[in-house]
Amino acid sequence: MSFTNARPSVSPTFSTQPKLGTNPIAFGAPTDEEMPFLFDAATSITQRGKIEVLNREEKPATRGWVIDPEGNPLTDPLSILNGLSQDQAALLPLGGDTEALGSHKGYGLSTIVEILSSALQSGAFLSALSGLNPDGTKARLRVGHFFMAISIESFLPLEEFKKNIGDILRELRASKKAPGQTRIYTAGEKEFQNALAVRKSGVPINENLLKDISHVKNLLEISELDLEY
Amino acid sequence: MSFTNARPSVSPTFSTQPKLGTNPIAFGAPTDEEMPFLFDAATSITQRGKIEVLNREEKPATRGWVIDPEGNPLTDPLSILNGLSQDQAALLPLGGDTEALGSHKGYGLSTIVEILSSALQSGAFLSALSGLNPDGTKARLRVGHFFMAISIESFLPLEEFKKNIGDILRELRASKKAPGQTRIYTAGEKEFQNALAVRKSGVPINENLLKDISHVKNLLEISELDLEY
Repeated sequence: MSFTNARPSVSPTFSTQPKLGTNPIAFGAPTDEEMPFLFDAATSITQRGKIEVLNREEKPATRGWVIDPEGNPLTDPLSILNGLSQDQAALLPLGGDTEALGSHKGYGLSTIVEILSSALQSGAFLSALSGLNPDGTKARLRVGHFFMAISIESFLPLEEFKKNIGDILRELRASKKAPGQTRIYTAGEKEFQNALAVRKSGVPINENLLKDISHVKNLLEISELDLEY
Repeated sequence: MSFTNARPSVSPTFSTQPKLGTNPIAFGAPTDEEMPFLFDAATSITQRGKIEVLNREEKPATRGWVIDPEGNPLTDPLSILNGLSQDQAALLPLGGDTEALGSHKGYGLSTIVEILSSALQSGAFLSALSGLNPDGTKARLRVGHFFMAISIESFLPLEEFKKNIGDILRELRASKKAPGQTRIYTAGEKEFQNALAVRKSGVPINENLLKDISHVKNLLEISELDLEY
């Protein structure tokens, strides 16, 4: 299990101020299958990286991901990216902005990650992770981490544990599908298959990202960088 | 930290079948305040108990909490309660029924709880927790639990840890409020204050619950049960 805090971008329930980081929870476990169970997710609905990708693709963000200081939804990726660094936009915790759909749960999970990533080592938290000094100059970002491993063989033989998890995952994947759905995944499955695919056929690069990379290539006068498209 | 699995009521992302339990995550930590930080939440948006309360209050459930086998929303509490015990209704994981709002995150967190609550002791999981034998007769419910405690003083003095958490919680509560909001809470705060209030002035009981209790009282010929209202 691995947790980390991060620079402020997520608002607490009933707030519009970015206070918490995207504060991911990661949990991995071996199985009796080729791929492990691997969950790695921000405790916010989405995170900055996804907005950056949408910005490059010139696509809008989903309504419900981000709010402005008045609590109104923001969907333009560039406004969101600029807003996040100026306290003018906040990502919403998993569950959104109302208790009715569980905002307080995403917010609470994020707070747990903040506690585990800072309180045990008296490290930096919340606004102290803004990356700015009080005078506005750039400061070193002092994020914290919490790692935990369970010694499986203190409980049962490793092979039995792996089979137990495999059985759980296989039963989940065999659940009745919702109309229109063709497949039920377990955590890490999509990413595992995507990794196999890109190893075989390369990493797809968006046109705008290619421009950025070419620009950097020219700036640095790198000639040996080989970009195919 | 405490985790438990439970009888099937929650559907995986892209499924409409109740497979996972409400699989709560609980995390408590002492602070330098009167009340601890106390998070205790199902990894589904809501849970059976809340639907039971709405049923007694004759109020509809929120759209987005529960789906039928076709994936359509259910809001009538009695239909939901009957449906849950007949595979005709499923609670949705935190994040709802689409990946766009993070359904896969609630589903993944729920799977982590299922793994921790069963795989380490080769215990029962998913449909084996239905409480029914294959022949339809009632079976003993074999839910599992996972408890973990961190020895704080292995890391730092307890008082310093408590102050660190208090500082995090106070900064969260001081976040800028969204328009129309009067207060920002941290996990366990509402419940702590509610506990103080009911200790002082009693537990409020809904009229339909009072009827149920009176009915049980008469059935059991309990005379000493004193119900004021």
